[in-house]
Amino acid sequence: MQYNPVELILKKRDGGILNPAEIEYFIQSYLAGEIPEYQMTALLMCFYFQGAMPEEISALTKSYIDSGTRIEFDPALPVADKHSTGGVGDKISLMLAPISAALGLYVPMISGRGLGHTGGTLDKLEAIPGFNTQFSMEDFRDLVLKHGYALVGQSSAMVPADKRIYALRDVTGTVESAALITASIMSKKIAEGSKYLVIDLKIGSGAFMPNLRRARELAEHLKRTGESFGQKVSVVFSNMNSPLGNAVGNALETIEAIEYLKGNYLPDTYEITTALVAEMLIMAGKAQDFMEAERMIQGVVEDGSALAKFAEIIAAQGGNPDVINDYQLFAQAKHQIPIIAKNSGYIHEIDSRAIGYALVRIKAGRMKTSDTLDYSSGAILKPKIGSYVQAGEEIGRVHCNDEAKGKEVVEMIINAYKILEAEKEPEALIYEIMKG
Amino acid sequence: MQYNPVELILKKRDGGILNPAEIEYFIQSYLAGEIPEYQMTALLMCFYFQGAMPEEISALTKSYIDSGTRIEFDPALPVADKHSTGGVGDKISLMLAPISAALGLYVPMISGRGLGHTGGTLDKLEAIPGFNTQFSMEDFRDLVLKHGYALVGQSSAMVPADKRIYALRDVTGTVESAALITASIMSKKIAEGSKYLVIDLKIGSGAFMPNLRRARELAEHLKRTGESFGQKVSVVFSNMNSPLGNAVGNALETIEAIEYLKGNYLPDTYEITTALVAEMLIMAGKAQDFMEAERMIQGVVEDGSALAKFAEIIAAQGGNPDVINDYQLFAQAKHQIPIIAKNSGYIHEIDSRAIGYALVRIKAGRMKTSDTLDYSSGAILKPKIGSYVQAGEEIGRVHCNDEAKGKEVVEMIINAYKILEAEKEPEALIYEIMKG
Repeated sequence: MQYNPVELILKKRDGGILNPAEIEYFIQSYLAGEIPEYQMTALLMCFYFQGAMPEEISALTKSYIDSGTRIEFDPALPVADKHSTGGVGDKISLMLAPISAALGLYVPMISGRGLGHTGGTLDKLEAIPGFNTQFSMEDFRDLVLKHGYALVGQSSAMVPADKRIYALRDVTGTVESAALITASIMSKKIAEGSKYLVIDLKIGSGAFMPNLRRARELAEHLKRTGESFGQKVSVVFSNMNSPLGNAVGNALETIEAIEYLKGNYLPDTYEITTALVAEMLIMAGKAQDFMEAERMIQGVVEDGSALAKFAEIIAAQGGNPDVINDYQLFAQAKHQIPIIAKNSGYIHEIDSRAIGYALVRIKAGRMKTSDTLDYSSGAILKPKIGSYVQAGEEIGRVHCNDEAKGKEVVEMIINAYKILEAEKEPEALIYEIMKG
Repeated sequence: MQYNPVELILKKRDGGILNPAEIEYFIQSYLAGEIPEYQMTALLMCFYFQGAMPEEISALTKSYIDSGTRIEFDPALPVADKHSTGGVGDKISLMLAPISAALGLYVPMISGRGLGHTGGTLDKLEAIPGFNTQFSMEDFRDLVLKHGYALVGQSSAMVPADKRIYALRDVTGTVESAALITASIMSKKIAEGSKYLVIDLKIGSGAFMPNLRRARELAEHLKRTGESFGQKVSVVFSNMNSPLGNAVGNALETIEAIEYLKGNYLPDTYEITTALVAEMLIMAGKAQDFMEAERMIQGVVEDGSALAKFAEIIAAQGGNPDVINDYQLFAQAKHQIPIIAKNSGYIHEIDSRAIGYALVRIKAGRMKTSDTLDYSSGAILKPKIGSYVQAGEEIGRVHCNDEAKGKEVVEMIINAYKILEAEKEPEALIYEIMKG
């Protein structure tokens, strides 16, 4: 059936509900070049303002998936994955994936790149010399079946609709729509063949979600959409007010992840990683409850099998696994500039977003997808919200190659900490879990 | 100053108010091809959903005007014009302009073409053999100064921003925005040099405005915007539930207008025309009140000077003024198919929009700007809301060249009349006047 694009825009604009055939027509015609970008933009903005019903989001997700190839795994395999909505210092995937694989899960992890204040798993992996993240869908599937997981970028064969529409949303102010975010995330997570999905939905100063109400709305959409495709989805609402772990920056974060797999946990990365892997194990029926899952996770870290899994995938994806024992193989920054607290007191707030943006200046992140990165640059930041710091104390270091810019970044980071005399309780890291 | 288009879209999307420099930047960059159509669309849709503050609408109007040439008249001249928001059978301009010119007003009338269910003044004029509506801005101005008025189409030199943005709005579902409608109407009416403007804001089944509340909002915008450019604006809220006059269709309407200028008034066209011209005369200081204005208007119709003005402009614009006395010079339809009432009773409703759309089938109107017209086709429709009709009575005629389609149109028109036994009062034609 032939539809009129303007009539569909008007229907959505005026609060109507588009049926699956109408959504499929719009997306397919857009991809075929029959609907121009300005009409796609008009529809996206209507989704932004009007929201969407579950059936519209499922239809949107389906038309995204149908635009490309879908990976199928043997239904008996426990294929599980994690998605994070993005934060500052979020290297959880680098620990979560090898731990999960060591525990017998299959993790077809498709990650993204950093943009703006947030980092991306692909960039962190590419800090490992030789590490390749571009594979065909077939080779990706083979890697997952052979090694229990793989860490790759989105191939052009997978949900090309999302790739094109995301690029358009980025330049038309239509990114922050729960409906569109859901279709974008879930289409990839369904097309990659995951049956169990845990979502790390981050809230706070370093996240995209400003508050729990908006986060819950998105979580409902994600969960319902996954379920409409037969997927189990668990959502962990986590606190992104302090950067996660101590390291922010690509090589620094990868080293921190390796240390973790050697058993050198940090409290916050431990809590988040364990919570997320536990959800995956419970959904896949590998663990009865969190207690059992935590014991299993500790086991594969302490016996070295998770670290071995990481070495295995580094080698399989063309990287040099010697980095695990020789951090000098990572790019090294020329300068380490100490960050000195100016006054004494408790940290009440951290503007994590500002820290992320500051680090873009020394190429630890990027503003545009075409910007190049300096893998060696970044920061080590020790205090969290609730920490006590003393005036003159070194609270972290900026690693950089451009000393002048590095000093600016140090200033910006110091200003991102709100230090007051009044005591401040540490914040909870996990707000709640919407079980799958 | 350089702005980021995405940031401006986000500002407007999130309820912010764009300042004049930001609006000017966006419009100018769009016209220069530096902002693509999809970003313009995103902003337009934000204006649709968020509305606009008076200063934003004035800035938008100014940037439209600044995109082209503006006509200047001697400040002493009483330059006045009318704008109608569009209806079915609306041939008022054809009477209003020559009457106003006969009364010493200068009317630089720029009209449009019909689209969808509504007709356009240019099409009606072009039903006159030889009538030319395309003039340069200079020649247009000369015509107005010499004859007291001219009836032309929008030249490409006048508010090109509106022309381009209107075309984009038409295909992106962003037409029905009071802010954008205001900038579109007012930019032309200010650029053409009018100092006094009366707006015929039509409400009802044959209009674009569904109700008085929405119409009042638009009226406030129009008035405030005109005033911010030193223009006096009066808004007449008129009833568009019954087609205006008896004729719908290009040649038929022009003939009806000529009959009017010969003194053969119809009650509804008389009331609307007189109200609108009276507002123009009162704003321009030519009449003290409606009573005086009405006497003046009757005078120039009854002494033939308004009709002479019409003959004068027809000749000046290349048309054959003999049409005034010989209607055979208009294109003639081969068939006249009577419209017969099926039941007796009072007319409670008329779906004027459906009548407009039905007549598109015999080319009395068009769906796309590229559709060709048949000037001879249309309908004569006598009863109004409140009229009593008897089963079997001829209530009108469809004029057409394609008899089969004409018969379909007759059926569609009959179905547009809701005839019930219960008595129905005629409706008021003018709801209220917001004085300039």
